[in-house]
Amino acid sequence: MARPSTNIDAGRAQLLDVVEHLIRKRGGGPVTLTELAAEAGMSTANIYRFFASKEALFEAVAERWFEPKIRIMEQVVSSNLSAREKLYEFFARRFLLKRDGYLAEPELFVSYLDLGDQHEDIVRGFIDLGDHYLAMIVSQAMDEGYFAGLTIDRTVSLINLMLVPFIDPRHIITLMHSVSEEKLHQIVDAMLLGLREPGLATPHLRLAAAAE
Amino acid sequence: MARPSTNIDAGRAQLLDVVEHLIRKRGGGPVTLTELAAEAGMSTANIYRFFASKEALFEAVAERWFEPKIRIMEQVVSSNLSAREKLYEFFARRFLLKRDGYLAEPELFVSYLDLGDQHEDIVRGFIDLGDHYLAMIVSQAMDEGYFAGLTIDRTVSLINLMLVPFIDPRHIITLMHSVSEEKLHQIVDAMLLGLREPGLATPHLRLAAAAE
Repeated sequence: MARPSTNIDAGRAQLLDVVEHLIRKRGGGPVTLTELAAEAGMSTANIYRFFASKEALFEAVAERWFEPKIRIMEQVVSSNLSAREKLYEFFARRFLLKRDGYLAEPELFVSYLDLGDQHEDIVRGFIDLGDHYLAMIVSQAMDEGYFAGLTIDRTVSLINLMLVPFIDPRHIITLMHSVSEEKLHQIVDAMLLGLREPGLATPHLRLAAAAE
Repeated sequence: MARPSTNIDAGRAQLLDVVEHLIRKRGGGPVTLTELAAEAGMSTANIYRFFASKEALFEAVAERWFEPKIRIMEQVVSSNLSAREKLYEFFARRFLLKRDGYLAEPELFVSYLDLGDQHEDIVRGFIDLGDHYLAMIVSQAMDEGYFAGLTIDRTVSLINLMLVPFIDPRHIITLMHSVSEEKLHQIVDAMLLGLREPGLATPHLRLAAAAE
């Protein structure tokens, strides 16, 4: 695939600023190329030089939204940290980014989420990428003795379920006063200490219960 | 408080059936007493014999919605089960009730959720009641040696955060294909094995990491 020229890149970046301005102005409803052209003072034909379709435009918006999150994930995965530290950083840094993004401009943040809801398949691709990175950390954690008896896929699924309020931006908003880095740390530790194949965990639990 | 007569009780129950019929017909927007009167073929004045206000009507609707969940919580708390078994049953039985309720009549289920969103304070009261029962199970679990070093309140909060996809009806819907009783069991066991005061957990985790 030919790489677009620097001019095209710069033009796209400028147009994405216009899109953000638009969303800030009138919320996260679908942005059409005609609307963007009017706001940017350009002909619609000219807009097509930068975005071939409404979908290509949204893809670029999503890329810009997810780019800092992907950078965090890449940094964490390629670091020399232990699996425990990686797991915490992996979720904590993105949790803080989203929380601070919401606090800085609540309406804009929610508008982006609304926009995302209209393009679930594109958002899904970025979520799958996150699962891919998480699987790499889980694999390291298994090498370190955690998650005994579980598959990587099952562990990734359980971790995602247990951390919904720290991952899902809408939950970060509604549970703002209940979620914290300290609680995230406690849950990550609980996952590492406690998530394992049921057959292995059961005797330990029965023992503890029998000691009542 | 004087107990309403059996006739009034029966009349209210019949009117709640009419409300459900209404919601089934036109979704979970606010139900007014005038609308209910028209649907029931009654004068509005007559409706006031059964419900003093729109709020009293919604309270009765919410009571009917939460009644089976409260019965489950009371049964589990007053049983002779171990804390581990109680914790699982406490969440699993209500999870299955909600999931099956959604699967039986998806639109009606979502309409009830929409209605609940319009009366957050009343719904909040029922959620607080759930936390009260959960605190009783957590207290028993602590007697059995679990959750070392944590307060009851902190433990209740962490458990609620870790089980959002099994508690929050909207998440049960969106994550339908990802949540299961088996996963709930694994997460409950992970909580029991792994949730404890950070200072206690840390050495164990460092040890595991050092063994890499």
